[in-house]
Amino acid sequence: MATVTDTPIRIGVMGCAEIARTVSRAIDLAPNATIAAVASRSLEKAKTFATANGYKQSVKIHGSYESILEDPEVDALYIPLPTSLHVEWAVRAAESGKHILLEKPVAMNVAEFDKIVAACEKNGVQMMDGTMWAHHPRTAKLKEFLFDSDRFGQLKNIHSCFSLAVDEDFLKNDIRVKPNLDGLGALGDLGWYAIRAALFANNFELPKIVAASPGTVVNEAGVILSCGASLSWEDGRTASIYCSFLANVGMEISAVGTNGTLCVQDFVIPFEETHATFTTCLKSGFNDPWVSRPTEHSVKTEIPQEACMVREFARLVGEIKNKGAEPDGFWPNISRKTQLVVDAIKESVEKNCQQISLSGR
Amino acid sequence: MATVTDTPIRIGVMGCAEIARTVSRAIDLAPNATIAAVASRSLEKAKTFATANGYKQSVKIHGSYESILEDPEVDALYIPLPTSLHVEWAVRAAESGKHILLEKPVAMNVAEFDKIVAACEKNGVQMMDGTMWAHHPRTAKLKEFLFDSDRFGQLKNIHSCFSLAVDEDFLKNDIRVKPNLDGLGALGDLGWYAIRAALFANNFELPKIVAASPGTVVNEAGVILSCGASLSWEDGRTASIYCSFLANVGMEISAVGTNGTLCVQDFVIPFEETHATFTTCLKSGFNDPWVSRPTEHSVKTEIPQEACMVREFARLVGEIKNKGAEPDGFWPNISRKTQLVVDAIKESVEKNCQQISLSGR
Repeated sequence: MATVTDTPIRIGVMGCAEIARTVSRAIDLAPNATIAAVASRSLEKAKTFATANGYKQSVKIHGSYESILEDPEVDALYIPLPTSLHVEWAVRAAESGKHILLEKPVAMNVAEFDKIVAACEKNGVQMMDGTMWAHHPRTAKLKEFLFDSDRFGQLKNIHSCFSLAVDEDFLKNDIRVKPNLDGLGALGDLGWYAIRAALFANNFELPKIVAASPGTVVNEAGVILSCGASLSWEDGRTASIYCSFLANVGMEISAVGTNGTLCVQDFVIPFEETHATFTTCLKSGFNDPWVSRPTEHSVKTEIPQEACMVREFARLVGEIKNKGAEPDGFWPNISRKTQLVVDAIKESVEKNCQQISLSGR
Repeated sequence: MATVTDTPIRIGVMGCAEIARTVSRAIDLAPNATIAAVASRSLEKAKTFATANGYKQSVKIHGSYESILEDPEVDALYIPLPTSLHVEWAVRAAESGKHILLEKPVAMNVAEFDKIVAACEKNGVQMMDGTMWAHHPRTAKLKEFLFDSDRFGQLKNIHSCFSLAVDEDFLKNDIRVKPNLDGLGALGDLGWYAIRAALFANNFELPKIVAASPGTVVNEAGVILSCGASLSWEDGRTASIYCSFLANVGMEISAVGTNGTLCVQDFVIPFEETHATFTTCLKSGFNDPWVSRPTEHSVKTEIPQEACMVREFARLVGEIKNKGAEPDGFWPNISRKTQLVVDAIKESVEKNCQQISLSGR
């Protein structure tokens, strides 16, 4: 929480993507952050965006990305640019001393992301990716359950999926189906969340093996529109993930441990902004599987999950700016692991579902 | 429904497995069937079972399987013997003119099952496997939704799982972990249902490709305790399945179509005996995924699903016995397809997750 002596972290919005609308509102709602500036490739576009989103008159309008990098009244940048531009602009942002809230997927591949991380480390700036659900108070409750050795026991399997059916126009024109823009397609845009959920349930341990499932759908340019994958860890822990631009909404986590079962129907974007639910089932009998019936839990949040994300990002930036703290390595670390699994699934897809070993990566 | 002129179908229970207790009750509850006889390898065991299950005095007790086959007052046999014994006793039952309700998995492999089917066809007897959930009135409602081209559209992905955590004694002594008894382990015992669900959602079209997922757990004798698999069909339809003796209860179907989403939490054994629920979600927007909220549906059943199964089996037997109808080929056909996928997953497990093509099988 921001204390009275702290001034809000001044965030610049670098790019006017659709998602920037949601995050602009989140910055407004976060008690310790404020929108200080917005940039687009043209002044006109930036102005239109600022007006459409009700930005205050005090928000500075930049007609180029270079310009916002040089703005001394910006502490941090929110970067929702197309993925292919992340490595260039995130590195330049870090080199300009700006902390970075970077949309996912964080890069086209982990080699690019490592350049971003190196630049952040060199310049002592915080990096965090835009995975909003990680910051919902429900997620902390899910973690409590998943790592409760009595109630849940040891994880055995998690299935997670994220699908959203897009329209014809999206399939023709959206940057997420263009190899030179968001070239990781549904895998980067939606699969990212499902992979993050699988890593989350495995305490962010990387899987040993990743294999794409048969049946990947790609467009004419080779961009993934739909795919699944299997992951495996030591001790018989496994995961399956699914993502698709071609199927109706699904955003499910279903996890079984030795003692307990967890189910979340809306893990990426909760049905309601004010609270979110999940279902647990405790130890069952083999001959009486429902001796324990599923229990629904509800977790309130005072601000939407995306505002929780901004609040946590701004808190970390504040620690660095005001108290000389070091950047928190947790967030870039889990971004990197998520990207590594994205890369491995893409590699497996390209190699006809061959198993990819992540040992040593 | 049985008419007043029909006498109930006389069913003999061939073997005293735990599941035979459930099915005995189901035969009692089905309006058109009655328990006529029970057989075990010893008269003593058969008597004990008959007493423990409250069989009427009129139920004949057989001290051998041969003996029940020769009982002229038995129309049909329910066979819950270990899987490795199915081919012998189901073929002998068919040759004795008995209709067969055969526990799943129906055989150790499809070659064995084909011998059973051939014997049934030659002798004009009905065969049905013991997949109870197929007969719940809810299942008809699931089918309605899955094949509604407006509400659900075309299937894109289905995930189905069935897990039940067994105890130490089971892992040492149960027939389902013994290669010479129920040697298909968790894949045959639990995976069967998950596979059936995937086939059900694909209108029983066989997948083109089946691949086991990395991370299969087997016991010292090589019997599968836990595994997952991916299946793919034409048109980008895919499925993932998971089964395990090592994880707490999970029995979920989660399916996404082009227009709709379906979720069932208890597809194998409903939470309640009197009714069962499922959740649907209609067409969502890409930027507003929950524009349609999930809707829960509840379906009543006048008798438990296992009694529905017996009722349908007895109805088919009655059609043959009383009206000279032909056996219904639907049931052996879907048993065979389920077994084919079981076999393919086992083959893939043995070949380090290699893709198995089902073309021509």
